[in-house]
Amino acid sequence: MNYLNMTKRELELEYSKLNQDYKNYKNKNLKLDMSRGKPSSEQLDLSNNILRQEILNYNIDNLDIRNYGCLTGLESVKKLFSEVFETDTQNMLIGGNSSLNLMHDIIANSMLFSSSESKDCKPWKDYKKIKFLCPVPGYDRHFSICEKFGIEMINIKINSHGPDINKIEKLVSEDESIKGIWCVPKYSNPTGITYSDEIVRRLANLNPKAKDFKIFWDNAYAIHDIFDNPDKLLDIFEEAKKNNKQDMIYIFYSTSKITFPGSGISFLVASDNNLSRIKNWLAPQTIGFDKINQLRHLLFFKNSENIKNHMKKHAKILANKFLMVDQILTKNLSGTNLATWSKPAGGYFISLDTLDNCAKKVVNLCNEAGVIFTPAGSTFPYGNDPDDKNIRIAPTYPSIDELFTSIDLLCLCIKIISIEKLI
Amino acid sequence: MNYLNMTKRELELEYSKLNQDYKNYKNKNLKLDMSRGKPSSEQLDLSNNILRQEILNYNIDNLDIRNYGCLTGLESVKKLFSEVFETDTQNMLIGGNSSLNLMHDIIANSMLFSSSESKDCKPWKDYKKIKFLCPVPGYDRHFSICEKFGIEMINIKINSHGPDINKIEKLVSEDESIKGIWCVPKYSNPTGITYSDEIVRRLANLNPKAKDFKIFWDNAYAIHDIFDNPDKLLDIFEEAKKNNKQDMIYIFYSTSKITFPGSGISFLVASDNNLSRIKNWLAPQTIGFDKINQLRHLLFFKNSENIKNHMKKHAKILANKFLMVDQILTKNLSGTNLATWSKPAGGYFISLDTLDNCAKKVVNLCNEAGVIFTPAGSTFPYGNDPDDKNIRIAPTYPSIDELFTSIDLLCLCIKIISIEKLI
Repeated sequence: MNYLNMTKRELELEYSKLNQDYKNYKNKNLKLDMSRGKPSSEQLDLSNNILRQEILNYNIDNLDIRNYGCLTGLESVKKLFSEVFETDTQNMLIGGNSSLNLMHDIIANSMLFSSSESKDCKPWKDYKKIKFLCPVPGYDRHFSICEKFGIEMINIKINSHGPDINKIEKLVSEDESIKGIWCVPKYSNPTGITYSDEIVRRLANLNPKAKDFKIFWDNAYAIHDIFDNPDKLLDIFEEAKKNNKQDMIYIFYSTSKITFPGSGISFLVASDNNLSRIKNWLAPQTIGFDKINQLRHLLFFKNSENIKNHMKKHAKILANKFLMVDQILTKNLSGTNLATWSKPAGGYFISLDTLDNCAKKVVNLCNEAGVIFTPAGSTFPYGNDPDDKNIRIAPTYPSIDELFTSIDLLCLCIKIISIEKLI
Repeated sequence: MNYLNMTKRELELEYSKLNQDYKNYKNKNLKLDMSRGKPSSEQLDLSNNILRQEILNYNIDNLDIRNYGCLTGLESVKKLFSEVFETDTQNMLIGGNSSLNLMHDIIANSMLFSSSESKDCKPWKDYKKIKFLCPVPGYDRHFSICEKFGIEMINIKINSHGPDINKIEKLVSEDESIKGIWCVPKYSNPTGITYSDEIVRRLANLNPKAKDFKIFWDNAYAIHDIFDNPDKLLDIFEEAKKNNKQDMIYIFYSTSKITFPGSGISFLVASDNNLSRIKNWLAPQTIGFDKINQLRHLLFFKNSENIKNHMKKHAKILANKFLMVDQILTKNLSGTNLATWSKPAGGYFISLDTLDNCAKKVVNLCNEAGVIFTPAGSTFPYGNDPDDKNIRIAPTYPSIDELFTSIDLLCLCIKIISIEKLI
């Protein structure tokens, strides 16, 4: 049923019917939270052996890891995860329980100290204005970091192959105040798309006017495939090395959505120059990150094959949820011309676009019926979606039943708000 | 034998004898590290059950603590440690594995953002110069933070009751560029002294010209008593409240020297205003600290009585070491007039003062015989001990045998260098 072709009379009839359905939902007194990309209990259970393991040998890499020291992390742990992330150990640093924290701290330090070898570069605080490019829709917590530091954000449209690379190339080559870009290159939050090889290559070969321009490559979903034929992401670090531009790249990984969010370990991959600078920044900040937790991850996984198998178990749980969301959306909205949505092969989100100027109202209407979705706009800098159409669906945390109800209600609300717009 | 009363001839004879002893030491090819205040393996063993515990219930305080959330830390854990530290839970925040990190981040944020309710106060970066008062000798890592941020450090002499409070009162009331003071108020690093009630009261009632002046109260050794009749420290937060000056105080605790250094938990106690500002600073930085590690500490200790008993076990191990150091120093140096040293009732260090301009040479001479002491000067800002006389002895990490050898060698080197000075 293509709503766009319906007569006013037909729309009014449909509207009245839908409102009855909505009333029924309201009477259920639902209280569901679909707002955050959190793993479900069932997923967390997969890592419960971390909570039950007995650490008998705490002498690893010739260190008593119970004591102080080892700022960049245990070599054995680097080795394990470098195999999985297909990267080098020598450019790796293991951080604390949050890769977001690493990103934040690199920016905080870049505000106060130069982040480049070039003598032309000042601490970012000493520029009148600095800007970051933000592929949108994107990750709200990246944008919060920019907001905290007063970094102006410029929206870059993201399409099925990645962000608008022509625009990026043009902007960074012209504007010295552009100091960085946020990228979630694989199973992007929330669109689910993976950057194409061409886009990765062109990003790795940017010619920014700012010599201290950095790509914040948040590879949060590096191994978070859900379906067969998963996406492949080109290694931007290797590509950048070919152009001797590796100083432009910071890569982040984390086990937050592999083991336990908030109790995992994080990783930074960076060039020799960057790593050496970051170690200098870190040395006064901490004597070292939690090595026992690093060891717990090593003992739990033992080898990279086990990590891959572990991710397959996550995938199995998530596949059902992602499929169901897609089915309900398809059943309710296919052919209506009221919405489009992503069908990612991995990651944590499904991104849905309503008609223009409907997302906020849809999310509000859902909330009034007791189902909280991520606030409309929050996938954009300053919480401002210029078209007010993007809604982030986070299918991972709720149960299948809750998910069914929530997405069914979402579809209903999309129809109601769309008709209000069309009439 | 009072060296200061010896004739030149006597000194020369003694010097020749001592040099023979030194040669014997050199022939032993020692390789000992006395440089850092690390717990020994035997101390770490006390907490090994943390490595062996089985966490079956991860639903604490109505939270699945395996998942994201809870920025300020688990209430049950706050409750446990607030009993031990004799403080309030409502003004407490639990941080990550490093209280140093909390201190660093508060200063980093204060550089970039105002740290006061007062509208007169700017971010510290916007002042031409800012300064911190540094009671000396003090903790090198505090000074490293100041160095990183270009904060000028002013030495404040510390005596047996605490830092020179008259000088502090005068300086902070006159100089608006003084924004903070570092304090290790109990078993001070390295002097081992505890601030007297009067000094705590006067600190809690300072009238700084800078409205954003802060006392960084690093209570690292809050419960780290070694001998009977332990020192008592007045609660500066309660004292400050009496004067409505609680916004002037940041208090830090950590379990680094209770359980595992680098894998413990840290605590901040701050006023409502400060805590609310710090939460705003933290929210873009992290989704939360490691709650599983917080829970591990709760399960390991269960109640405050067990923490106190646990600290008695630490004390038992440390008492032997501290006593032995004192005995060797007494045996070799008592009556020589060549050195004075502290006899702390707790903490991690013994502080020794040589004759002026001898400390560097003594430490170098020890190093040449294979025993590394903390570099002379490192207990002072910029590594510069103006009298070049302070040596920090860290008795905790080495074995009793190593300690015996190292301190005996130290005494020998003090005598040799002192005679070179006297002749």
